[in-house]
Amino acid sequence: MTATAFPAATPPERLLLGPGPSPVHERVTAAQARQVVGHLDPWFLEVMDQIAAMLRVVMRTANPLTYAVSGTGSAGMETAVVNTVEPGDTVIVGINGVFGGRIADTAERAGAEVVRIEEPWGRIIATDRVAEALQAHPGAKFVALVHAETSTGAHQPLEEVGALLADTDTLFLVDSVTGLGGVPLEVDDWGVDVLYSGTQKCLSVPPGLAPVTFSAKAEAVLDARTAPVRSWYLDVSAIRTYWGQPAGGGSAKRAYHHTAPISALFGLHEGLRMVLEEGLETRWARHAEVGELFQSHLEDRDIELLAQQGHRLPQLTSFAWPEGVDEGALRSRLLDEHGIEVGGGLGTFAGTAWRVGLMGEGATHANVDRLLDAIDELRER
Amino acid sequence: MTATAFPAATPPERLLLGPGPSPVHERVTAAQARQVVGHLDPWFLEVMDQIAAMLRVVMRTANPLTYAVSGTGSAGMETAVVNTVEPGDTVIVGINGVFGGRIADTAERAGAEVVRIEEPWGRIIATDRVAEALQAHPGAKFVALVHAETSTGAHQPLEEVGALLADTDTLFLVDSVTGLGGVPLEVDDWGVDVLYSGTQKCLSVPPGLAPVTFSAKAEAVLDARTAPVRSWYLDVSAIRTYWGQPAGGGSAKRAYHHTAPISALFGLHEGLRMVLEEGLETRWARHAEVGELFQSHLEDRDIELLAQQGHRLPQLTSFAWPEGVDEGALRSRLLDEHGIEVGGGLGTFAGTAWRVGLMGEGATHANVDRLLDAIDELRER
Repeated sequence: MTATAFPAATPPERLLLGPGPSPVHERVTAAQARQVVGHLDPWFLEVMDQIAAMLRVVMRTANPLTYAVSGTGSAGMETAVVNTVEPGDTVIVGINGVFGGRIADTAERAGAEVVRIEEPWGRIIATDRVAEALQAHPGAKFVALVHAETSTGAHQPLEEVGALLADTDTLFLVDSVTGLGGVPLEVDDWGVDVLYSGTQKCLSVPPGLAPVTFSAKAEAVLDARTAPVRSWYLDVSAIRTYWGQPAGGGSAKRAYHHTAPISALFGLHEGLRMVLEEGLETRWARHAEVGELFQSHLEDRDIELLAQQGHRLPQLTSFAWPEGVDEGALRSRLLDEHGIEVGGGLGTFAGTAWRVGLMGEGATHANVDRLLDAIDELRER
Repeated sequence: MTATAFPAATPPERLLLGPGPSPVHERVTAAQARQVVGHLDPWFLEVMDQIAAMLRVVMRTANPLTYAVSGTGSAGMETAVVNTVEPGDTVIVGINGVFGGRIADTAERAGAEVVRIEEPWGRIIATDRVAEALQAHPGAKFVALVHAETSTGAHQPLEEVGALLADTDTLFLVDSVTGLGGVPLEVDDWGVDVLYSGTQKCLSVPPGLAPVTFSAKAEAVLDARTAPVRSWYLDVSAIRTYWGQPAGGGSAKRAYHHTAPISALFGLHEGLRMVLEEGLETRWARHAEVGELFQSHLEDRDIELLAQQGHRLPQLTSFAWPEGVDEGALRSRLLDEHGIEVGGGLGTFAGTAWRVGLMGEGATHANVDRLLDAIDELRER
């Protein structure tokens, strides 16, 4: 075996306008270059407390149990599911794209019976359908909905379902991987019990961490478990003490669980600072304005938007190319000749659709212009 | 709710001589500051291929299925266990410290019956005891041993057990979180079937990724599963295609599973380049020399080493303070007054022991001197 090393990996210039990762400000990438410290260093434990505090602001929650999972958004999803589900539980999952399906898959692996509320891709899940499912399965452990379906661009309303579940024993579990920081989200006011997100979408932080929060109602469910959580790595009951958020409150000694990803947490800390400097509501407004501008330009060109009218995410737009357009070839040329990344369609939309993200640092008028100009130039040739 | 941001997190100067994270060279932290690219960018997929190729060199394996899990070393442990175990399986686990216990815990959560081979902390697991356990449980799915017990500093021999298992259907699963890059490890020659490690020990890369490899024998076990893997996030059968390592070989299209932690992978790429530039055997020799020097200095001072003589890791030394020494206070002063981090004891050793890591960039003569001088100064006052 020869000990061959490769040359340094120097990335090509890219403008990230796909479904994530989004562009990262150099303040955040620079934070990841800071000197590594120990995961139990008292100074670092304070940084973690600050991250949790800033996450609460961005999530609009006072939940004590709020932290960043040491994995990507999908690890946040798995954390939410495996900590709440016990074998034999029934759960209700809205499926109108890839990510609802993923919740259902994970819940089944955790031993749940899954009741699926299915809608065509791009549509939202109506509150009535949730109410019906709940009536048929009154003891359901949770209802799960995807706030911002990254595979379709559908923008799921949450408030009515939260109200519906408030007086029941059923938890409201929400995937806001692509929502957090981009569109309004009110965890406490909307009655969301378990929320997970990712860093690489509207927070504009590199992928690798998954913010999560659990309400008091959700905490009671965690406390009442009789079966062990099927994952050791994602077991909230063990990790929460490391984050200084012990069961029952108070200030238990911070105990080692696993070695936290220090550099990634430095990046998240700096990214959250930037979100709060801009102001959460200003950031929501910026995403709305830029995304709607882009979508109106597409409609001007008779391009079909795939998410249901009135329920479109501004930060993630899916649209279908007319027949005859080779979307894959066009996408490759956009990357190779213009250095712009966009996403192809997933599942039902594979081979015909694009997904354009105008998220975080990427949500600017200049990027809308640059993308449309590049597309026009490529299609004219 | 007020949108209060915190000041930037500027780390204090630290010399990391604990059980991990180890000191990180600025070439590696700087790599984490590179521009983020997409996880399906063809350029990035090549970077991943290079990481896998360098991991094979460092692990001394030709296993095609070799990649970095998107989580810390414990996520590598969970990947190894949950992908091999099906409910009702019997597994044999050597427990002589924290990390063997963690494998057993995870295997039980995955539905296994665990046969424990227990030894006092600091001792190794004798091959005879593995042979006995295997005779009593001939259909065991795996035998798991910890190559480098981070909680004790014990250095487990692997070669004989590998030979013992070679002609059986039982897999050899090895935790080398603290071993990889620091002491000799020959995955192929020693018959290791499933190996996991971490980045933040002897590779001197920040925490956040877990290198893993699976032999052909292990792959056959994965392929023959009938029960779904209990984790979605860590399911090898789904992730391997993203890493360009599809079942059955060949070059299937790289498919999205989850968004890879791009920045962390840049760091690992650069860190592996540095390991190969130094040369693996040179690196092993450096760890051996520096660790043995430190241990001989401790013995000169009549300090009791806790790992079994003849089986001590050079990169991780555990020792007991004489009665009357307040180890916690001394450790705090070492951090506050000298900026040096070391680790306290875990479990059995809590409150009496220290764990000193001389790992990766930390394994230098100068660091041994600096640490000993600081300890002497603190104890004289």
